[in-house]
Order: sequence, then structure tokens, then C-alpha cells
Amino acid sequence: MKIGILGSGPVGRSLGNGFASNGHDVKIGSRSPGKQELQDWLKTTKGKISVGTFLEAATQGEVLVLCPLGEAAENVIKLAGTENFVGKLVIDATNPLDFSKGMPPGLFVGTTDSLAERIQRMLPGAKVVKCFNMVNNQTMTNPRMKEGLADMVICGNDESAKRQVAELLKEFGWGEPIDIGAIDSARWLEAYVALWVRVAMKLGNWTVAAKFLRS
Amino acid sequence: MKIGILGSGPVGRSLGNGFASNGHDVKIGSRSPGKQELQDWLKTTKGKISVGTFLEAATQGEVLVLCPLGEAAENVIKLAGTENFVGKLVIDATNPLDFSKGMPPGLFVGTTDSLAERIQRMLPGAKVVKCFNMVNNQTMTNPRMKEGLADMVICGNDESAKRQVAELLKEFGWGEPIDIGAIDSARWLEAYVALWVRVAMKLGNWTVAAKFLRS
Repeated sequence: MKIGILGSGPVGRSLGNGFASNGHDVKIGSRSPGKQELQDWLKTTKGKISVGTFLEAATQGEVLVLCPLGEAAENVIKLAGTENFVGKLVIDATNPLDFSKGMPPGLFVGTTDSLAERIQRMLPGAKVVKCFNMVNNQTMTNPRMKEGLADMVICGNDESAKRQVAELLKEFGWGEPIDIGAIDSARWLEAYVALWVRVAMKLGNWTVAAKFLRS
Repeated sequence: MKIGILGSGPVGRSLGNGFASNGHDVKIGSRSPGKQELQDWLKTTKGKISVGTFLEAATQGEVLVLCPLGEAAENVIKLAGTENFVGKLVIDATNPLDFSKGMPPGLFVGTTDSLAERIQRMLPGAKVVKCFNMVNNQTMTNPRMKEGLADMVICGNDESAKRQVAELLKEFGWGEPIDIGAIDSARWLEAYVALWVRVAMKLGNWTVAAKFLRS
């Protein structure tokens, strides 16, 4: 499957490597696709991944993954061209983290909106599914922890898009994701990350990940 | 230790039974301590627990536990007498859940305040520690799940009060709690509960509890 990844930071690179390893055709979109540091990284992927502009990645991808910094997400979508999202599964891995007061962060969306909802409103023809935002980029493609298998929680308005995400997650070794409903449930998945950051800082472990233990 | 529990619902009763089983002297405070249903429950505790007004429970308790409905918390504190909290450890198990749009709930505090902070502001002389709010009342006193030991996350401004909470948690079988800092971190512990409710509803399991898996 052709996957366009919008964001070339640690999350985009980790997911890019992961999707490519699972046999997908990956193009990573960047504001500056020619920058040396990105080109150097690209060499480590041994030709399995290509890099281009946001517009190029969005045009070529059949499935699109959003993973820029939260505050840049809406601008990245504009640069990618909103028409290029229509009808597609859009995996939203962003977090609306507010670092204006330093670490640890707050949120810039409050609890009556979410970045996922803003993105879905910008892209009414797209099938936005919140996924991956609750774990570190290394865990996204490698959910098996020393202490067990982490849980992934997802949400979105389109049932078939969520099924497709579940299939993609399975390729990385995730179990069945916990689907908590429509896209407005992303408010709580995004707020969770502010808790996760604090737990990770306390434990000194940035790959800590939640599991919901059943009784 | 004399423990005053402010709230006679399922959380107050579960914690009351738990603390009494651990050898503590428990008084549960209620708006209507004489009501038949509460008196009937009291008989099942075989004399190990007493019931009184909020004022009586707050006066007698050396450690106080707040567990009314979130929206009633500030009124309960007034009825209990703010002077009765001074210098004491106050375990805040409340959640600011907003059910005005039905289930599942939102929060009535946003992400730039928390019910724990409101309580600490009402009670500047008390040592408020957020604890227990992230799990079901049954899990509070019984953290051992079929799939492992759940994690408890706490926060508060007073280090010695948090140590005392860790000791009380240990009596219930909890491991060392994850202390995420000062009382303003409760914003994210409270927001987590809105996620937890959605996960529990999806899994059809109200005693689901989080564990933070280490890599």
C-alpha cells in the first residue's frame, strides 16, 4: 500500500521505517525535503523510503499519516492540499502539546475540542482515525514491552477506516486496538499524553506505555 | 489511625471497608447519616465502621478522604468545616465529571485547573494528595488484577503527605505509587478518567485499570 507520511521528525521516521519493513511503499513529506540531515537519514533506509514535499507525499499516498508537531498540523495540511485527503484514511498521530510554560506540557485545545476534531473539520471528506499518539515513536512499531504487550486506543467516525487501522496495527504486532468511539473521543486520548509525559519523566523511561489490565 | 471518609457512596464504602480491614478506625461522613439504606449497609460491616455527619467525620479523622460526587465536593468541604482539615493529610479521590451531556462524561474543570487544585485552594492549610481517582472503587483496595498489578499515580504539594499515602497504599497491596509532582498535575489524572470510562465501556469491564509497562 502507498503510505504518505506528513512529518519527517522522529515519529515520521519511525513509522516510515516500520511501514516500509512491513512491505508498504512509503513517501515521507517534509517542509524541506532537501535538507542535509534528512538526506543523511534517508541513506540509512537503503532505498526503501522516499522523501518529498508535503504535497508530493499527500498526492501519492493512498493512506496518509499526520505526524508533525501539533502546533504545525493545520499548516502542514494546507501545504499538502486539502483536496489530497478526500476519501482517504488519515491516521492522526499528532498531539496538541503546549510547551509555552516549558516541560512538562499542557494542551492547547482544552477539553471541549481536540486536534483530531480540528483536523476532521478541515478535512470533511477524509476518514480521520486517531492512532499512535499515546505512545513514544519507538513503541509505535514495536508494542512488545519487557512487561507485556501495550494497548493502543483509537477513535474516529468511520468504521471501515478503523478496521483498516486495526489491520495495519496488527502488522506491527499490536493486538486488537481499543476503539473508544467517534473522533470527539480524541479529546481524552490527547489529554492522556500530558499524563503519559509526567509518568515517563518520573520513571525516567520514555518508552513506557499503557496497558489496561482486565480484572 | 483515625480515618474520616467524606462521602458514603460506593467509593466511601469500599475505602471504608478496606481501611477498617487494615486495622484503622473509620468514620464515614454523610449528608444523611441516618438514612435507612446507609444504616442497612452499616450492619454488614459488623461494628468496624461508624457513620456520622460530614462535620463529625472531619473532626474525628486524623487523615481525611474526599470521595463525594465531584460536583458536590466543595459543598461537602464547607459542611465538614474547613478548619477541620488544617494540618491534615487529605486524600482527594474525586473526579470532576460532567454528565450534563449524558454518558460518557466530560470534565467541568477544563485543562488549566483541576478539582484537586480547587480543593487545595479552599484548604490552604491541608496537605491534599490526589489518589485513587484513576480506578474503580473495587480496585482501590484490591489492585491485583488477573493480568498483573495495576499502577497508582498520585500528586500533591507535600512530600511527607505523599509518603504517608504510599504507606497506606502498600497496606492494600499497591506497589510504590508513581508520584507525578505537585497538585496541578491532577489536571491530567482527572482527564485520564474520561479516557478510562470510555475504555471500560468498550471492554465492558468496570474494573479495568492501567499499568504503565516499562520497556
